[in-house]
Parts: sequence; structure tokens; C-alpha cells
Amino acid sequence: MFILNSSDPVPLYKQLYTQLREHILSGKLPANTRLPSVRQMAVELSASCNTVDGAYQELYAEGYIYSRPRSGYFVSPLDHEVAPHSLSGKKGENNLVQPYQSHFAYDFHPAHLDPESFPTELWRKCLTEGLRRNSREFSHYGDLQGSWGLRCSIHSYLEKSRGVTCDPDQIIVSAGLHQGLEIIAHLLQGQHTTVAVENPGYHLPRTVFQNHGYTICPVPVGIGGIELDQLKAGSATIAYVTPSHQLPLGYVMPVANRLALIEWAESGGRFIIEDDYDSELRYQGNPIPSLQGLRPTGNIIYSGTFSKILSPELRLSYLVLPYSLLARYRQLYRDYNSSVSLVEQRAMECFMEQGHWERHIRRMRTVYKKKHDMLLRSVETHFGRRAVVIGQGAGLHVVIRLPETPYSEAEIIDKAAQKGIRLLRFSDFHATGHPEAVTLVLGFGGLVGSEIERGIALLSHIC
Amino acid sequence: MFILNSSDPVPLYKQLYTQLREHILSGKLPANTRLPSVRQMAVELSASCNTVDGAYQELYAEGYIYSRPRSGYFVSPLDHEVAPHSLSGKKGENNLVQPYQSHFAYDFHPAHLDPESFPTELWRKCLTEGLRRNSREFSHYGDLQGSWGLRCSIHSYLEKSRGVTCDPDQIIVSAGLHQGLEIIAHLLQGQHTTVAVENPGYHLPRTVFQNHGYTICPVPVGIGGIELDQLKAGSATIAYVTPSHQLPLGYVMPVANRLALIEWAESGGRFIIEDDYDSELRYQGNPIPSLQGLRPTGNIIYSGTFSKILSPELRLSYLVLPYSLLARYRQLYRDYNSSVSLVEQRAMECFMEQGHWERHIRRMRTVYKKKHDMLLRSVETHFGRRAVVIGQGAGLHVVIRLPETPYSEAEIIDKAAQKGIRLLRFSDFHATGHPEAVTLVLGFGGLVGSEIERGIALLSHIC
Repeated sequence: MFILNSSDPVPLYKQLYTQLREHILSGKLPANTRLPSVRQMAVELSASCNTVDGAYQELYAEGYIYSRPRSGYFVSPLDHEVAPHSLSGKKGENNLVQPYQSHFAYDFHPAHLDPESFPTELWRKCLTEGLRRNSREFSHYGDLQGSWGLRCSIHSYLEKSRGVTCDPDQIIVSAGLHQGLEIIAHLLQGQHTTVAVENPGYHLPRTVFQNHGYTICPVPVGIGGIELDQLKAGSATIAYVTPSHQLPLGYVMPVANRLALIEWAESGGRFIIEDDYDSELRYQGNPIPSLQGLRPTGNIIYSGTFSKILSPELRLSYLVLPYSLLARYRQLYRDYNSSVSLVEQRAMECFMEQGHWERHIRRMRTVYKKKHDMLLRSVETHFGRRAVVIGQGAGLHVVIRLPETPYSEAEIIDKAAQKGIRLLRFSDFHATGHPEAVTLVLGFGGLVGSEIERGIALLSHIC
Repeated sequence: MFILNSSDPVPLYKQLYTQLREHILSGKLPANTRLPSVRQMAVELSASCNTVDGAYQELYAEGYIYSRPRSGYFVSPLDHEVAPHSLSGKKGENNLVQPYQSHFAYDFHPAHLDPESFPTELWRKCLTEGLRRNSREFSHYGDLQGSWGLRCSIHSYLEKSRGVTCDPDQIIVSAGLHQGLEIIAHLLQGQHTTVAVENPGYHLPRTVFQNHGYTICPVPVGIGGIELDQLKAGSATIAYVTPSHQLPLGYVMPVANRLALIEWAESGGRFIIEDDYDSELRYQGNPIPSLQGLRPTGNIIYSGTFSKILSPELRLSYLVLPYSLLARYRQLYRDYNSSVSLVEQRAMECFMEQGHWERHIRRMRTVYKKKHDMLLRSVETHFGRRAVVIGQGAGLHVVIRLPETPYSEAEIIDKAAQKGIRLLRFSDFHATGHPEAVTLVLGFGGLVGSEIERGIALLSHIC
């Protein structure tokens, strides 16, 4: 009935186990059948008792057979309707081919960084240092909010460079903005139902808050940022804003509007989410200080990230929660663990402590300023007065409006793709309505100078 | 009015900027006041025009002043009720002291790993290799589900060692179980409202599903795992189970119950979440194969982790989603990014590819078997017949029941803490009801043999 093959690399006990299991699953060995004793079976198979016992033990542990004292092993009753007839055999139908990914010669994605600038060697050193700093801590769960050392480094950077006033206690290290937004959505759930977002604006906060059951209230953006009159006229009690570099239009919210926004929040128990995603990258003058610093005790949730300067693939971001939300956070999340690897947190701490972070910011500002200037020059050269440039001087992209183009956005994106040019749909930044004129977001971070020049030249012929 | 100090390390333009800003915020410079021209101000301060221009430019960029063509700069009208009177000055009240963390001499936490066994040097090599493998990929967002290479490695491990049948396409790399559970809670929201959990059972799924608005339906656990009759009697349409090593009681769900559970799920569009958190650690016989492998096309969401063998601080876990949920996942999460660092994903891939993972499992099985045996011997020696041992033979903890102790759980935990012994409250594993007798969860992973012996001896005197 059972055949063991000693030239098969699979151990004999495993061969017997597999064959017995298939007989049980298929019903060939019916329920409550008594199995031969170990010794009998061993004689039958010319195998050792150990082989048979090993197979029986495994079948017993998984419940394929049961034992009765002094009577031996019996086949367990199974529901043969549900049971698979076989668990062995090669499946062979596995889809092991990586899904196709397209590549563009000119990728104007606004979140692409310079592909040559990741500080591999420095990061390796920092990872190594992070690993060696007390490896015993890898044996248990650490601080939910992130490692204390990294939070202190972030704290002093924020205080010095971003004008954020907080304690390390208020900082939560998160695995990217979307996780930070999920925490916020979760914290404010119940008390709040409607979130105002900038229109046009970043799609991610819309998606995350919608996924958490919130109503999204798009508020137009003017050159002073989110339109405060329209915000006040709506019923939103949370406002997501990018005051230091509006995404995607690049406007800076002036201090008067910031104060008015703070007043709006304070007067009604409302909340501001300040997404300060890339304000390190300003090419004229200094970075614009944070809104949070104007009212550190206010209802402002500050969000920052290492994704735009260092790498989006490290998944390192952070929130600064106001004290008013900290108790609720700790209560809601007390059973959770941090989402960010301790090795990377320590590496980032080391990177900041040793001054690499600030040097890297300065370096990247120079790298991107060159690309930014090249983009503006190329647009000037190839589009001339056909393009109106918006939001230059900062970040990783500029926006151009094409009031005279005879083509629609979709037509331009299609034609661009045929030329190897990737453009995001500007209309995806719109929660409602449409841009007045065809508008293109031109990210320059991932391209080298000559690609920018050629890409814009090609683009100018199809717009 | 303004004093610039050239021996101050702060640049002169920044000194002027700060003083002007404070005058504007405090109202000393009222709204619409015309500022002196750059040249006038420079003469007044005996400073260079560059200094004054630098200060004006920064105030202008942030909206503290506005300009009128051919008339110069004017102070912006601000809401002085809300405006802070000063943004400079040392705060000094920062709470920079790390919150106190207590340490126990004998920490019986069931999720603590051996503190000496993290493979620091191997992991460093794998991180380095991961970093060097195409650093250009650090410049943009990668695959939402996790890197293809790591998913292929997880896939072949699961197929070979856990009897899971899937495609790499179905695997989602997540930052720990809680993130995996959040994804599941989110995916099933709307269609499902009630989740059955094992009672006693792990608290995390209760918390996560509750946080997502689900009703929790605790179902008692017997020696065959979750009680199927009670599960069927309830209204839950999702069941969270730990079939290969019930947490905390350690029971294995026999194959007949597994098939019945699958039948329950299939017959009503219900879902099984199989949390296979530590089944690599079995000290007698082989690991119990997964439930998923019995019905790969069924409504089974499989969850696995590297936290119990390698480190909980790497935050590396994964889900295997059934194809029936994959489309919805991709639709809901299409705007999101992966939560796990690409460097760590590549390091893990390298760790698995080079065979370190399977060697490390074997090594840890030996390390923990010794501790496990030491714990059982110590309980036998010091408690004798006062303790009934449950769930031995696997994982990182065993459970003991003390039917005769005159003390309550709270009294024992208090007295233990005074002796430097940390015990989790077994009652926290209960969603409802209480254990019949005082029950202790004794994790042994984080302790060395002599600590286990002494800890149990001390404990036996206070129970």
C-alpha cells in the first residue's frame, strides 16, 4: 500500500507521512480506521520503527489521526467535501513573473529625487553604527512613538531649522505620510467628520480621510494658500494645508493668513494639519518657517518627512502632535507597536547627530537648484510666452499653464507618453472642478540637466 | 531702534529680520507702516545694503511685509489677538528627559527574544548588500506591496516550510502585524461588521478591529482551538485564529476542525484570518503546516512575521491575501506607498536567499528548546503538583494554572514585581470572562537559563 524510496532525498518518515495523509484526506483510509501498530507497519514496509513513529507523530500532532489508550492510532473523521484530495505535488502554475513596469526616458514625476544622490556609503556607516549600538534591544518591542534618540534629533532639527516648538515627547516617528495621516484620521474620528483640503491639492490626504469615513470639503487655493473665507463658510473642522509650499501650486501662505487660520482653529476646537513636506528646498532666500511655530500650544498637527531630501524608500516621516491629542493617541495606540525599524531609526539619528543631514540638505539644495533653473530656462526657450510658470523657486517641481494650447490634458499626456515623456494628470490634484487652462506639473528631481532640456523641447512640440 | 551686533554668530541680516519680525508681531510697527528704504535703513544701522535687503526679502517671503511698486515695503496687517509676541528667545522648558522605563531582573514577557542571538554581523552584511543593489531605486517610490524580490523569497519559504500555496502577487509586506490587521480591517469594512476572536486570545486583533468600528465576538478556546459550535452560533463573519499554536494556550487546531472552519468560511462568504506568528518554533516533531494550504483558493488571509525568530524591532511581517481580496486591496490602496524600508526588504531578501533565515530558525529552535526545557524543569521542581502546565512544546512561552493558590492574579503580579519579576496579566488575554483558576503566562525567550531557574523559584514562594 505504501512505498518508501530510500534513494529519494525526502526522509523516509516524511514519505510515509505524506502518503498516509493523502489516503486520509481522500477518504481511502476511512474515518476511525485503526492504523497498524508501529512495529507491524515497520515490518510491512521493511522500515525502522523510528520511521513509522516519526510519521505517526506528525499525523497525530496535526490531527489526522487520534489515539486511544492501549489501542493505538485511528483515522480522524474529516469532512471530505472540504478536504483537498492532495497537498503534495508540484503546482507549477505559480505566477512568478514580476508584473511589467514601464519606463519613460523623461519622467517628470514630481516626487522623484536625484537618482545619483542617495548617500549610500554614509547611510551604510550609519546603519552599521545603529546596528552596533546595543543589539540587545532588537530582542523586544521598543517605544511606540519611535526611539527616544531619533525623536531628540528631530526635535532639535525642527527647532533650529523649521521654527517648530515642541518636546520630543510630542513626536511620533511614522512609516511615511500615509501612516501619519491614518493616525490623525483615527485620532480625530468621532469628534470630527469633515476635512477641508486644498483644491488643487495632494490626493493622499483626500484618500486617507475618505477611507476613514470623513467627508472631504475641497477649498480653492489662491496665491495666499487655502482661501480662508471659503474655509470659514464650510463646515469642516479639520484643515489639511501645505502652507510653506502649496502642493502643487507652490504658493506660500503669508503670515497674516497663517494667523487667521490659527484663529479659525482656536475659536472652534478645530484642527490644522500642517504638511511641511519639502520646505527645506527653497532656492531663493531661506526656508519659510513653520506655521506650528506661530502657536506651539495651538491645535496644529505638524507633519514632516525625510522622503524629499534623503529617500522616499526609507519610509521615514514624523508627526508633532499637540499636547491636546497626545493622551488620546497613547490611549488608542497603547497596544500597537512602532511601524519603523529600530535599525533605520538609529541610522537616521546617527545621520542627524553627525551633521550629515544638514550637509545633505545643503547639497541637495544646490543639486536641485541647478535642475530647477535648467527647467525654467528650457520652458522659457521652448515655450516662450505660450507657458505661464507658477510656483517656481522651491521644491521638486514647477507648474506651467498653457492657456493657448488647442489640446486637452488627456491628449497631451497621451502624445507625451508616445514620445517617452511621463506626466502626471494635473486634474488628479483636483478634488472637484477643473483647472482654468491646461496645466502641467513638471517634476525635475529625477532627471539630469540634458534630459530636462530635451524633454521640455519634445514637450513643447506637442502642446 | 534696531541694534546689530557683529560679534554675535547669528548673521546680521538674520538679526535684523528677527528684530523687525518681533516689532511687527507685537504691533510696535503698526499695519501699513512704510519701512525705510534699503539704503536709508543701511545708513541708519551702519550696515550694508545686502544685510537690509536680506532681512526684507525674508520678511517679504513670509508675508510680514508687502511691497507696492515704486513705494517700497509696508507692514502687513496681522491679527494681533492671535499673533505670538515673540518667536525668539530660549524656551528652556523643553522636556528633554526620556520617560522612565522600569527594568525587571526576571522579565517573563512572552514576546521577548533571546537578547544575545540577533545576528548583527550577518544582518549588517545583508543591509550593505541591499544598499548596494541599485541605489537609484532609492530616488522614487517602489512597489506598494513590497519589493518583488522579497515577495519571491517569502513565497518560496512559505511553500516549502509552511505549506502555504500562493503567488508572490498575493503577498503584501507590512510593518508588523498591527499594520497587516489594519489593512484587513479596512478591506473587509462595509461587507463585514463582526469579528470572532479566540478567548482567551491575543489582544491586538481585538484592539485593531474595535478601532475600525467592528463588533468583537469572543469565542471560547478548547483543546481543538476556537470552539466551532459557538463560532457558528454567533453572527461573526470573520474569524481571527492562531491554529498552529493558539495564543496564549498553545493548542493546535486538528485538521478536522480546520476543515470545518474552512467549510464555515466558504459556505457564507466569510473570512478566516490565520495568524501563523511563531509556528517555526516547535520543539517536538515538525512545525504544524498552515491552514491556508488546505484550501489555497479559500477565503483565508494568512499572516506571518519575522518578529519571533529574527527581531520584533525590524518591523517585518507579511500577509497572503486571497485573490478574492486582491483587486479591492489594489483599488483601496492605489494611492498609498509601502510602509517598509526598501533597504530592509532587500536585506531580508538577501538573508533568505543566502540560507541565513533557515539556519537562523534552526539555531533559534535549539536555543529556545533549552530555555523551554529549563522552564518546565524549574516549574516541576518548584511548583510540583501545584501547577498545571499548558501549551508546552512550542513558541516562546508556556502557561501554568495554579488551582490551589490563595492569591488573586493582581496580588501575585504585585508581589512578583516587588521581587523583580515581570508577569503580564493573563486576564488581559480575555475579552470577556475570567480564567477558571489563576493562570500565569511564562515567557522564556528573553531570559537565560539561570534567570529562568531563579525567577521560577522566587515566583513559587509567592503563589
